[in-house]
Amino acid sequence: MRFDTVIRNATVVTATDTYRADVGLSGDRVSAIAAQLPAENSGRVIDATGLLLIPGGIDVHTHLDMPFGGTTSSDDFETGTIAAAFGGTTTLIDFAIQYKGQSLRQAFDTWMTKAHDKAVTDYAFHCIITDLGSAQLEEMGQLIRDGVTSFKLFMAYPGVFMLDDATIFKAMGQAAEHNGLICMHAENGGAIDVIVQRALAEGKRAPKYHALTRPTTAEAEATSRAIALAEMAGAPVYIVHLSCNDALDKVREARDRGLPAYAETCPQYLYLSIENFDVPGFEGAKYVFTPPLREKWHQEKLWQGLAKDTLQVVSTDHCPFCFKEQKELGKDDFTKIPNGGPGIEHRLSLVYSGGVHGKHFSPNRFVQLVSTAPAKLFGLYPRKGTIAVGSDADLVLFDPNHEEVISAKTHHMRVDYSMFEGIKIKGAPKTVYSRGRAVIDSGKFVGRAGTGQFLRRQAYSGL
Amino acid sequence: MRFDTVIRNATVVTATDTYRADVGLSGDRVSAIAAQLPAENSGRVIDATGLLLIPGGIDVHTHLDMPFGGTTSSDDFETGTIAAAFGGTTTLIDFAIQYKGQSLRQAFDTWMTKAHDKAVTDYAFHCIITDLGSAQLEEMGQLIRDGVTSFKLFMAYPGVFMLDDATIFKAMGQAAEHNGLICMHAENGGAIDVIVQRALAEGKRAPKYHALTRPTTAEAEATSRAIALAEMAGAPVYIVHLSCNDALDKVREARDRGLPAYAETCPQYLYLSIENFDVPGFEGAKYVFTPPLREKWHQEKLWQGLAKDTLQVVSTDHCPFCFKEQKELGKDDFTKIPNGGPGIEHRLSLVYSGGVHGKHFSPNRFVQLVSTAPAKLFGLYPRKGTIAVGSDADLVLFDPNHEEVISAKTHHMRVDYSMFEGIKIKGAPKTVYSRGRAVIDSGKFVGRAGTGQFLRRQAYSGL
Amino acid sequence: MRFDTVIRNATVVTATDTYRADVGLSGDRVSAIAAQLPAENSGRVIDATGLLLIPGGIDVHTHLDMPFGGTTSSDDFETGTIAAAFGGTTTLIDFAIQYKGQSLRQAFDTWMTKAHDKAVTDYAFHCIITDLGSAQLEEMGQLIRDGVTSFKLFMAYPGVFMLDDATIFKAMGQAAEHNGLICMHAENGGAIDVIVQRALAEGKRAPKYHALTRPTTAEAEATSRAIALAEMAGAPVYIVHLSCNDALDKVREARDRGLPAYAETCPQYLYLSIENFDVPGFEGAKYVFTPPLREKWHQEKLWQGLAKDTLQVVSTDHCPFCFKEQKELGKDDFTKIPNGGPGIEHRLSLVYSGGVHGKHFSPNRFVQLVSTAPAKLFGLYPRKGTIAVGSDADLVLFDPNHEEVISAKTHHMRVDYSMFEGIKIKGAPKTVYSRGRAVIDSGKFVGRAGTGQFLRRQAYSGL
Amino acid sequence: MRFDTVIRNATVVTATDTYRADVGLSGDRVSAIAAQLPAENSGRVIDATGLLLIPGGIDVHTHLDMPFGGTTSSDDFETGTIAAAFGGTTTLIDFAIQYKGQSLRQAFDTWMTKAHDKAVTDYAFHCIITDLGSAQLEEMGQLIRDGVTSFKLFMAYPGVFMLDDATIFKAMGQAAEHNGLICMHAENGGAIDVIVQRALAEGKRAPKYHALTRPTTAEAEATSRAIALAEMAGAPVYIVHLSCNDALDKVREARDRGLPAYAETCPQYLYLSIENFDVPGFEGAKYVFTPPLREKWHQEKLWQGLAKDTLQVVSTDHCPFCFKEQKELGKDDFTKIPNGGPGIEHRLSLVYSGGVHGKHFSPNRFVQLVSTAPAKLFGLYPRKGTIAVGSDADLVLFDPNHEEVISAKTHHMRVDYSMFEGIKIKGAPKTVYSRGRAVIDSGKFVGRAGTGQFLRRQAYSGL
Repeated sequence: MRFDTVIRNATVVTATDTYRADVGLSGDRVSAIAAQLPAENSGRVIDATGLLLIPGGIDVHTHLDMPFGGTTSSDDFETGTIAAAFGGTTTLIDFAIQYKGQSLRQAFDTWMTKAHDKAVTDYAFHCIITDLGSAQLEEMGQLIRDGVTSFKLFMAYPGVFMLDDATIFKAMGQAAEHNGLICMHAENGGAIDVIVQRALAEGKRAPKYHALTRPTTAEAEATSRAIALAEMAGAPVYIVHLSCNDALDKVREARDRGLPAYAETCPQYLYLSIENFDVPGFEGAKYVFTPPLREKWHQEKLWQGLAKDTLQVVSTDHCPFCFKEQKELGKDDFTKIPNGGPGIEHRLSLVYSGGVHGKHFSPNRFVQLVSTAPAKLFGLYPRKGTIAVGSDADLVLFDPNHEEVISAKTHHMRVDYSMFEGIKIKGAPKTVYSRGRAVIDSGKFVGRAGTGQFLRRQAYSGL
Repeated sequence: MRFDTVIRNATVVTATDTYRADVGLSGDRVSAIAAQLPAENSGRVIDATGLLLIPGGIDVHTHLDMPFGGTTSSDDFETGTIAAAFGGTTTLIDFAIQYKGQSLRQAFDTWMTKAHDKAVTDYAFHCIITDLGSAQLEEMGQLIRDGVTSFKLFMAYPGVFMLDDATIFKAMGQAAEHNGLICMHAENGGAIDVIVQRALAEGKRAPKYHALTRPTTAEAEATSRAIALAEMAGAPVYIVHLSCNDALDKVREARDRGLPAYAETCPQYLYLSIENFDVPGFEGAKYVFTPPLREKWHQEKLWQGLAKDTLQVVSTDHCPFCFKEQKELGKDDFTKIPNGGPGIEHRLSLVYSGGVHGKHFSPNRFVQLVSTAPAKLFGLYPRKGTIAVGSDADLVLFDPNHEEVISAKTHHMRVDYSMFEGIKIKGAPKTVYSRGRAVIDSGKFVGRAGTGQFLRRQAYSGL
Repeated sequence: MRFDTVIRNATVVTATDTYRADVGLSGDRVSAIAAQLPAENSGRVIDATGLLLIPGGIDVHTHLDMPFGGTTSSDDFETGTIAAAFGGTTTLIDFAIQYKGQSLRQAFDTWMTKAHDKAVTDYAFHCIITDLGSAQLEEMGQLIRDGVTSFKLFMAYPGVFMLDDATIFKAMGQAAEHNGLICMHAENGGAIDVIVQRALAEGKRAPKYHALTRPTTAEAEATSRAIALAEMAGAPVYIVHLSCNDALDKVREARDRGLPAYAETCPQYLYLSIENFDVPGFEGAKYVFTPPLREKWHQEKLWQGLAKDTLQVVSTDHCPFCFKEQKELGKDDFTKIPNGGPGIEHRLSLVYSGGVHGKHFSPNRFVQLVSTAPAKLFGLYPRKGTIAVGSDADLVLFDPNHEEVISAKTHHMRVDYSMFEGIKIKGAPKTVYSRGRAVIDSGKFVGRAGTGQFLRRQAYSGL
Repeated sequence: MRFDTVIRNATVVTATDTYRADVGLSGDRVSAIAAQLPAENSGRVIDATGLLLIPGGIDVHTHLDMPFGGTTSSDDFETGTIAAAFGGTTTLIDFAIQYKGQSLRQAFDTWMTKAHDKAVTDYAFHCIITDLGSAQLEEMGQLIRDGVTSFKLFMAYPGVFMLDDATIFKAMGQAAEHNGLICMHAENGGAIDVIVQRALAEGKRAPKYHALTRPTTAEAEATSRAIALAEMAGAPVYIVHLSCNDALDKVREARDRGLPAYAETCPQYLYLSIENFDVPGFEGAKYVFTPPLREKWHQEKLWQGLAKDTLQVVSTDHCPFCFKEQKELGKDDFTKIPNGGPGIEHRLSLVYSGGVHGKHFSPNRFVQLVSTAPAKLFGLYPRKGTIAVGSDADLVLFDPNHEEVISAKTHHMRVDYSMFEGIKIKGAPKTVYSRGRAVIDSGKFVGRAGTGQFLRRQAYSGL
């Protein structure tokens, strides 16, 4: 037996198992796992003593190179996938946005062009639908066959992204028929807009009013409505960036009744809170994203939701805008602040620190949340999301005891601040493989733009 | 002491009490209740031995003389109030409809004209809002001051009555500020319309498809959303014609959390079910109203909801259309059938039969449901809704053991069929007083058109 | 018309109604209510302008002259009923305790003797069963026929009062058959005793450990179990002195499912909390009763429970022991402190202050909680619990705006401290009638020991 | 690389993964998994094309060679482990019963003797405690150190096995301190006994009355109480043989609150129902076990509970008694029928058929339920419960499409009837390995009594 790479003495961690073994890679794939592999005529041999070997992270919610409010998110597919790789994420699912009047295919083509030649690791796309006529409804089936098997709809941002219930319901029916999965931004945009206008009329223009004008009830209501529409359509539904206990309760109630309802949360909702707006001047703009930060007590509820499988996934909703020049577009009016925050790089470390070291769950559950469940839900499994013979060798050598303080000074995202500045993490990737090739080697980037491949995803088939 | 009328030996039943007494009326009012009243120089003396004396029924949901789908509901304010009086209902709150482009005042004036000179008992109006610009928003406060203290909004019938969430939310904010009460038709009209179109496309045109295209989930969803919007607006909300357990659960959950959420159901949901569509030909059209009839098991849940105060009111949603010529407008297409059913006459008998004789609740709860709670919730108490010194002498001598079979042949509504044909009731009004004057005397109509007065209602102040 | 007493210009408040009237009393009873009663040849005429006229309070949970832990509760039926009357309570239901080996009849006779010649207002008894063999099981039916229609059982105090589940279940079956009502002290005594022994072993002997060794989960568990046993027995159940939200949730869940489960709370749980133990030395003993005081946040949940009918009754669990010599029996060991606190006098004022002035509910709900519901649930209605023609003239002229600070210096209970010392109340009785006779007249006691009568109660028939 | 056995072309299925590979065994263990293993100098080579390779089943609830009601369960550790092996179960955890007056060690020693020299596959023990004085309480810690890390307590069978709440609470406290796990038989034995006695008194003696005298409410109540006691003790709790939706709701509620509450169900509750008693004569005795069979609708709820992780384990509660002579002991009195049914052999086939072919869950979830979760919860993982390098080679070659009809004529359990007679299963073991040695080879038994080893289990550390 001969391998391109042999990783020796690793502690392999999957969503179920933890064991000591040697892992052999051949070409793109994992080809053998054994108590001891012959290293003699193998290519590279790595000693992984003391490290965890986990499947590469999968971030199913990123916005790279995305136009928004007159500017563009500051990471493109090169800087974004590099930062992701530093953080142990080797696959991401970004969003191809269909603008009004366009076909879904146009959206797909545009985003394929953005990623091609740039991505250092593999990627896929969801399609955001903002205009759903009969032509686009028809297109949904074709897109699913082309490997874009999930669609994101908005219940917020009236006049921009928001769809009405009839349209959402039609999209869900179509998804159900073709085994697509609807991802939902669940906030009641109608009510929120009235509250926002009222706040502006009262002269409330500082960044924190972005958060104060988006009540948790608006998120819970829309979550509940999305699930009801999906139930009537016979469709599964995936709630993105769930931020609060009120919405969590709605997902739990649905799952307890046996419905195929799923939800993700993001590290910002696990680590940050409304108190982050207690900063001088305009600095709160760093925390302006949607849904907004909530009261601190929600954090523990979300950790519990992750532990108990009410939440199945942690994604980042990475959508970076520099504080200078970009966030500043909203200096005098919080509604003009580009919405979004940078997070693609620290997901694994933050979830491991708070989740495993914080005694909320096991390392296996950690792997499930950041890699296996995303792969299964979004049609990437078994190619991605696990360490098993035949799977892609997207692997992370993870040092569970590495300590570090997050800072914009040291991060690799192309953005001039960090949401998590000063937060200490314990547990970090050391070496990262994408399809058998190292992209990060002991903390150094060794990959190459354009080697990432587009992943045609399979249709939805449950978790 | 001298009285215009003395009712002797009555068993007085209020929402709390049951006792034997003589009741003396002076002018419009109850002026004395005593173990024995001197009958000597009093006007009329009635012996009520064996009868219950209850406060006149209040029906808060009727549609008299209402244009709909190219026709008009078949009872006007004369025939409607007469039929109501036969059934022991002495006050009704009808709906003044504001059509697109109109002021709320125009709606109010139109309906005042319809009722004036016709009504034989007292009446009031809710205002249905279908077009809510800033002018109408402004008007809401004035209307409340004029005694129209509740407004009905629709979450169903897109393109006709349906308002979007932003508009509903604004209306609720305005209601909260001026102590108005929002009444909500809670069904997700967007989803329903898609289902309806799909049914028509599949050639499903018979009356029963009206019911089959309006799932209970659509009602539950909208109920939940109405409550969430009200919670965010700091407003109370009243769900009209709740028809199913799914929606009932949403109301219960809200009330358990302490929210001012209320709901009514109607006799048709307590007595009829989807099985009523198992009739030949087009006859199912008799049961076409909205929300539609549900599976039979919901009935018992609704009775329990009435018993346990999850539901506070029984109204009728009386909206009669003759089977001939009116219902027949939808002979080839269920969407063209005028929606509505006749019920104003038998509410008290049906609720007493199923509720009290059916062992679901006490006679006191019966009075609460058909009279006291409606009066309190809609600003008519203490003038209406009870038997107490100083209250209007709207009184019903009710024979709890009178048995009868409901039939279009004998009813007094101006409509050629009965939804409740063949149903046996036990318990019926014998003599009915409106402000001290008999309108029904031992089963004969003795009133006069035009003697009913418009009631300026007080602002909402809870139940 | 001639009356022994005419109360003029009262604002009559019942559980449903509020209206201005004159009320005429003849003999023991209310004989007339009218806009104006002829005062000419009537006996006494009282002007009640500005006062509420409410039915006399009914306290269904008191322990007068009760032997406990080597001492006896400090109020007997004379001092106790006088203090009650000062507070507007004109009927109480005390507990006749059956000790091991005794017949139920012996218990009843003993307590009849205690009350006779002493009580200044009417009274009745529940029977506490501590030893339920087949003879006593047989006796239950007879006791119900004799007017003792409710029984109290304990799930706490192993070795003293605690019954096992089999015995409780038998008692419930018997109660169901004879229309009796089981009142339950719901705490898991087994678990609590283990915790208490552990605390003592660790040298935790101060009064506060009484509270810290009785977790809310132990109360919630027993509440849930009592309801389950009752459900299997087909019996109603009434949870006494419910103290915490955990138990409240169990009652709510049962009621939402339509079960005849009821519960009372007491003023101490509405006004006091675990923080009351933050007093020097042994003074915390003043607050040693069972269930114990809880964290402060439970108070608001209990108020909401009262408002929303999850809780139906406020009683006092009045069980006074003087701080000197009585409470001091437990100076070195909290388990030796006689359990109980004095509360019979201030129930109406405390509930009116916090409930009505505190905006939790209406004056009608106040009457329902302190008088009407107790009367109905425990078979005293319509004789007691309302103001209606034919009911006993147990009446309270209540000044809703009277302000006062509670203090042991001014109260009328025979005990040397007040649990509510320093608490300001708004709303207090001024004049109190028991069956037509004044017992308190403008704040002076004018009654006489021995005039109170034993009330044979009717069988349970719901609320 | 050299292996004792190479299994080629297997479809390996673990709780997370499904993939095609060769698996190499060396000594007791799995030593390599690879795309292709060199077969040249390996011992035995098996071609597993078309078969699933799953970890050996673990049955955590069996009663072999158990004295009960004057007889003994009909399988001993030889016939029982052979039948288990035929069904793909390679580890079982039986119960060592401590009788009154004994030490726990005596129980352990007795059962060790029963198993030694007989078992053909590995085994471990829980300890049933029936008499818990301070000596035995002390012993619990030692037993845990000796590898008996779980204890079973009874809330049913008063006078025989039932412990009171104080004792249960103490045991839980001790378990919490030493990381033991309490397994609970949750039925309210007190109430049930009263119902049983009443039934006997009424002459109800047929087998079906065993079921009719044990209401689901009694199981739900005890489940809820067990969880509450565990919550107060800070201990995890594992509910055995959960049979109905009422109890399932209690477990769900606890888990939703984040408590470490677990539960198993058994195939009889998934496949059989109260309707099984509709058989002539005494034949219903075949279905007499505890908890009893329930109404049919519970089955689907249990399947959903397994799918949604409200239930974590499927065990059998295998406790066989022959119909002749054994079950017949209760011919005239259902309380004399030995309680229990035979099930050890068909667990995997029944769960695979109903679960995977029945579309309730995936093959991975199947493995989790019958092997991985049992191993993790009861301290056997990673030695047992998975297929991973370093784990014991307890392996099953499972044919997912093999169809068979269950019958006593063909089964291997030493009992003269089958509970599942006539039920068709799809999916069955073909070849079974225990620590690398074949015990079943293509449906033939090839093992040897006495080769099974006692497993010292690790302390509880969650799932």
